[in-house]
Amino acid sequence: MSEERILLSHGAGGRKSSELTRRIFLKYFKDPALLRLDDMALLDMPAGRLSISTDTYTVDPIFFPGGDIGSLAVHGTVNDVAMAGADPIAMSVGFIVEEGLPMSQLERIASSMARAAREAGVRIVTADTKVVTKGAADRIFINTTGFGLVPEGIHISGHLAREGDAVLLSGTVGDHGIAIASAREGIAFRTTVTSDSAPLNGLVRQLVDALGGDVHVLRDPTRGGLATVLVEIASQSGVGIRIRESDIPVRDAVKGACELLGYDPLYLANEGKLVAMVAQGASERALEIMRSHRYGSEAAIIGETVRDNPGKVVLKTAMGGRRLVDKLSGEMLPRIC
Amino acid sequence: MSEERILLSHGAGGRKSSELTRRIFLKYFKDPALLRLDDMALLDMPAGRLSISTDTYTVDPIFFPGGDIGSLAVHGTVNDVAMAGADPIAMSVGFIVEEGLPMSQLERIASSMARAAREAGVRIVTADTKVVTKGAADRIFINTTGFGLVPEGIHISGHLAREGDAVLLSGTVGDHGIAIASAREGIAFRTTVTSDSAPLNGLVRQLVDALGGDVHVLRDPTRGGLATVLVEIASQSGVGIRIRESDIPVRDAVKGACELLGYDPLYLANEGKLVAMVAQGASERALEIMRSHRYGSEAAIIGETVRDNPGKVVLKTAMGGRRLVDKLSGEMLPRIC
Repeated sequence: MSEERILLSHGAGGRKSSELTRRIFLKYFKDPALLRLDDMALLDMPAGRLSISTDTYTVDPIFFPGGDIGSLAVHGTVNDVAMAGADPIAMSVGFIVEEGLPMSQLERIASSMARAAREAGVRIVTADTKVVTKGAADRIFINTTGFGLVPEGIHISGHLAREGDAVLLSGTVGDHGIAIASAREGIAFRTTVTSDSAPLNGLVRQLVDALGGDVHVLRDPTRGGLATVLVEIASQSGVGIRIRESDIPVRDAVKGACELLGYDPLYLANEGKLVAMVAQGASERALEIMRSHRYGSEAAIIGETVRDNPGKVVLKTAMGGRRLVDKLSGEMLPRIC
Repeated sequence: MSEERILLSHGAGGRKSSELTRRIFLKYFKDPALLRLDDMALLDMPAGRLSISTDTYTVDPIFFPGGDIGSLAVHGTVNDVAMAGADPIAMSVGFIVEEGLPMSQLERIASSMARAAREAGVRIVTADTKVVTKGAADRIFINTTGFGLVPEGIHISGHLAREGDAVLLSGTVGDHGIAIASAREGIAFRTTVTSDSAPLNGLVRQLVDALGGDVHVLRDPTRGGLATVLVEIASQSGVGIRIRESDIPVRDAVKGACELLGYDPLYLANEGKLVAMVAQGASERALEIMRSHRYGSEAAIIGETVRDNPGKVVLKTAMGGRRLVDKLSGEMLPRIC
């Protein structure tokens, strides 16, 4: 029997679309808002500050060590919503599927999204599927847009780093980037590195509940990596940032792969890490909270914000030198997320 | 001088990404939430029922008579949010751009989105851009996810049609479908039909404010057309729907094109029309409100809901016969929206 594949009619809005909705999406995304089958979802919300984030995922390959495009699309958006200190509540999902994608792959991705959403405690409340002719897209792209509420009195933003803050990193950098590069190179190049793709809203909740206003900045270093994100924060907040290379956790396998492939781990994408800038007095407590969390066990204090060089990031190298860190220039690995 | 084009590095999250954000997106999308340049937008919201809708736009061609993929992406999502009786407030935008797209085309699309959002009174609060290698996507795809608030006491859904409701249509059907078909066929086939793409939230507001609980169902007949949407509502609400072919407004040019191309206007996509089911006693008032609105001047009462044939739609043909209307089966025009 030949494998069942996605047809153009699955995206036409007619009978086949309803069939696909029932067979795949309602099976895994069981939310009552979605089950109404209206073109919109309705959600009762209390008054408050809504944190909203959108991201489109075009990662290649769509299945990789440590995850797939579905779990990545859930984690990535949950994390962006959470970086304002918010509790992610719900998300929408928009699929673009290339005609001919095996139905089993779409099902595997939907099931993975549902699992990731369950772990993060976020509802998938509405979805849309477009199917494009063969060759007009590469297998599948997914947009997720998430919503959450920021607790009262919490103000966390890339603009709010203050001189003297401690800079913390929740774990090793470069895992996602190397996992994708490794999967893409196929047999010619293999590592044991898996993507760090993970939901960070639980860790954020613990940090913010314990430290409140002492948490100034949270940011997940995805595309562009740790270096780019630090430069952005330095520029947004008008502070200098000093980091110590020797304190930045990097797995040996990632270091090895970087040497082989000519990558710098500071610019590689991460999908389950966060950078936090907290008041100096709260830094040990923040580190302790991170280290006792499943997704922060290798956390470290990697530097501090300073008055010198506002808008710039200075790295103290392992050899003792100092160099200015810039944003990623050019393209390191296309379709990393 | 060669034309400037989108590069992979414009989507890498580094320096070129920042440049693109400043040059195109901040130029047109000037919202203060977006100008913060965090990975999420923050919005103060009162308590209430949130209407959330997501849609991805893959329309081909990306510029067509009466609009482009940008204005369509704004109108489509504004309309879906509004069909719950909600006031659309804000939306997110997710771009997937193929490497090599002329920068001028992206700029034209962003400018068109900003104009459409301004007319609809909706804020573009956060955006994301991914660039994929040449051949991995066809020029540009856009996801928009919108949300709005449903006024207290308003309950409008495909489930809420009641026996005896009047069925209204806000104008002619098939214009968008024929405009796209015509643009795609190029010189071999031309009509004067332009897309009806338009924001319907103003019209919805007037209807709901005037008629309140007498408005039971609102739905925009996009993919799958009027026929598919009516069958969906009949099935969701468990009522029969009777419509009269002779009362359904169709432009002569659309009729002519349908004959030529073998399309049925009842299955063609619309992007600026709505179907309303209202209590019988409110139908004349609803018609009057529609007709006095810019986007409802050709509105008509096209039928009613009945006890017979629950879940089914019966069409009284122009010749006086009766036939059962089914959902679109198969694919009529791929990438219509």
